[in-house]
Amino acid sequence: MAAKLPVLAPVARTRKSPFYASAVKAGVTGVTIYNHMLLPTWFDTPEQDYWAIMNGVTCWDVGGERQVEVTGPDAFELVRLLTPRNLSKHKIGQCKYIPMVNQDGGMINDPVLLRLGENHFWISIADSDILLWAQGIALGKGLDVKITEPDVSPLAIQGPKSDDVGAKLFGEWVRDLKFFWFKELEFEGMPLVIARSGWSKQGGFEVYLRDSQYGAKLWDMVMDAGAEFDIKPAAPNSIERVESGLLSYGNDMDMTNNPYEIGLDKFVDLKQDIDFIGKFALQKIRAKGIKQKLVGLKFNCDPIPWNEEFWPIRSNSRGVIGKVTSSTYSPQLKANIGLGFVPIDMTEIGTEVMIDSPYGYFSAEVHKVPFI
Amino acid sequence: MAAKLPVLAPVARTRKSPFYASAVKAGVTGVTIYNHMLLPTWFDTPEQDYWAIMNGVTCWDVGGERQVEVTGPDAFELVRLLTPRNLSKHKIGQCKYIPMVNQDGGMINDPVLLRLGENHFWISIADSDILLWAQGIALGKGLDVKITEPDVSPLAIQGPKSDDVGAKLFGEWVRDLKFFWFKELEFEGMPLVIARSGWSKQGGFEVYLRDSQYGAKLWDMVMDAGAEFDIKPAAPNSIERVESGLLSYGNDMDMTNNPYEIGLDKFVDLKQDIDFIGKFALQKIRAKGIKQKLVGLKFNCDPIPWNEEFWPIRSNSRGVIGKVTSSTYSPQLKANIGLGFVPIDMTEIGTEVMIDSPYGYFSAEVHKVPFI
Repeated sequence: MAAKLPVLAPVARTRKSPFYASAVKAGVTGVTIYNHMLLPTWFDTPEQDYWAIMNGVTCWDVGGERQVEVTGPDAFELVRLLTPRNLSKHKIGQCKYIPMVNQDGGMINDPVLLRLGENHFWISIADSDILLWAQGIALGKGLDVKITEPDVSPLAIQGPKSDDVGAKLFGEWVRDLKFFWFKELEFEGMPLVIARSGWSKQGGFEVYLRDSQYGAKLWDMVMDAGAEFDIKPAAPNSIERVESGLLSYGNDMDMTNNPYEIGLDKFVDLKQDIDFIGKFALQKIRAKGIKQKLVGLKFNCDPIPWNEEFWPIRSNSRGVIGKVTSSTYSPQLKANIGLGFVPIDMTEIGTEVMIDSPYGYFSAEVHKVPFI
Repeated sequence: MAAKLPVLAPVARTRKSPFYASAVKAGVTGVTIYNHMLLPTWFDTPEQDYWAIMNGVTCWDVGGERQVEVTGPDAFELVRLLTPRNLSKHKIGQCKYIPMVNQDGGMINDPVLLRLGENHFWISIADSDILLWAQGIALGKGLDVKITEPDVSPLAIQGPKSDDVGAKLFGEWVRDLKFFWFKELEFEGMPLVIARSGWSKQGGFEVYLRDSQYGAKLWDMVMDAGAEFDIKPAAPNSIERVESGLLSYGNDMDMTNNPYEIGLDKFVDLKQDIDFIGKFALQKIRAKGIKQKLVGLKFNCDPIPWNEEFWPIRSNSRGVIGKVTSSTYSPQLKANIGLGFVPIDMTEIGTEVMIDSPYGYFSAEVHKVPFI
């Protein structure tokens, strides 16, 4: 972490989730802005938060993960247009990770889609205004849908002891909730959706609160139920997620990247009988082949801070050949690791590249992902 | 300002403008994120920055004001669809402030539009992803346009001595540049657009740098030329802009507000011969009349910090009747002032309302805008 970071100027424009006041009381010290909302990034330090997530259980204010709600007679038709993933078998009660691309096949978000009814969806978004995108597409195509941002805010319970906390709080049934399935319920007067999901590979739930007034109540109930399991307040963790190979929109991909470059091939179905947005562009890209790919990298250097910007990747013979998109010190591998784009002919495990960081020029080798 | 603010977690996702490194060297201490980019908010304190803007000249990294570039045969047709403002007389070389609304007439941005050619536009945006919105509309309607985010970053020179700095640096001709007109030029090898514009009422220019590699060079040249005028690094200033009545998207308006509520009536032309987006909704809203309006407020209280969230406005007889959207201590009026929504029957100058702030419950009266 850099020695001195600027403070985040608080104004009404930087919206607070219903859990944010609780997070502040619990001692949040690092934040970012995500979907125009304050999003906690660490409480103690990223390292201390990491161990809490790996070994115990943690409670995260991820209210910045906003929902784009799509309802109306053409809702299913619209969401199918919005992703290259084939949704023909998307069941009610199920979550699906759906890459979204524009007409050029460039990634514009990588949300999770929840199907609440035949024609009732939540697109649980990463940091870009999919609300505007979806409204623009629907308007242009004349589809009969309603697209809004509902009063829905997720609180995440993540870590190996999540099931214990969930079961104690909501009942034993949550242990049987399957991965990427959810249940709607009213609990202690609070309208909730509980999904087995979350932005870590350590297990857990996302509890979507459907009424902001209960933010503090839900936070407190989770923390109280978790007390005996030593629950800690934490946040989406940059160390855990790089070790686990979870992608971050804006870091590991943007509008200049297609799904193939970032390893999302299996979510692209070009044989579908619908012309989803970007289909023709992706057909061309696939036929032509991609030039670069996102890979794991293990750095040969002493421990260094994470990258605050993209670091050039070089080859001694070819100059700049790519960029590091995310990196962290891995407490488990006892090495700095990261994700980055390299030319397609340099993606084989073990290939050596050079990292041009503010902390020095050193080699790295292509590594499998997830790292652990 | 609150005693202890969380730091902003720096990652590659929070993009840096080409001027940001220079701003850091110059001592920026407060930042926000704007269009997914770090945006300085103050250097010394907002108060010290304010006096520099009011009395002298300042240099701002406003690279977070991104451009949405629209080109192609249908470019003019598309931009006309994107705003209720009548653009039929928009000349090449001219800037226009254009409210943008969605199909429900709700504000989605309030950018400045620059016309660089018959079918070449920059939408210089506030903080929402108009790139996605414009791409979505164009795609849905099948318009023949290209919509991108070009490598263009504005640096602002603001304050009463701006003309002196501009003239010294670029030549005497800039003194004759009319308000909201711009000129394209190459200067010292840097491709620039210089506009007489900026987010203050103290006069000045926005210098749009069209090639990121020259960020430090341009910043340094402006600071060097400004040295004899005691130029200071500063940023869009929350005190100056509230005193001047400049609106801030996300604070003073969002998708739930129509242009009439925020006093942008003169930029809505319902008689145009095109069906711009939101026309039918705005026709209905206009026929029905609006229920609330954004007004100036002068608070009756001892000096208090600005609002970090929306504060309820109450009437003793009617309960919550509105909200404060922006507020500041005004060094010139020696009072706290702000902007806020009140019911349409309470908009007359001098009307008393009650402010429910974390610093106490006190009265305020409706005040003319601009305040100074």
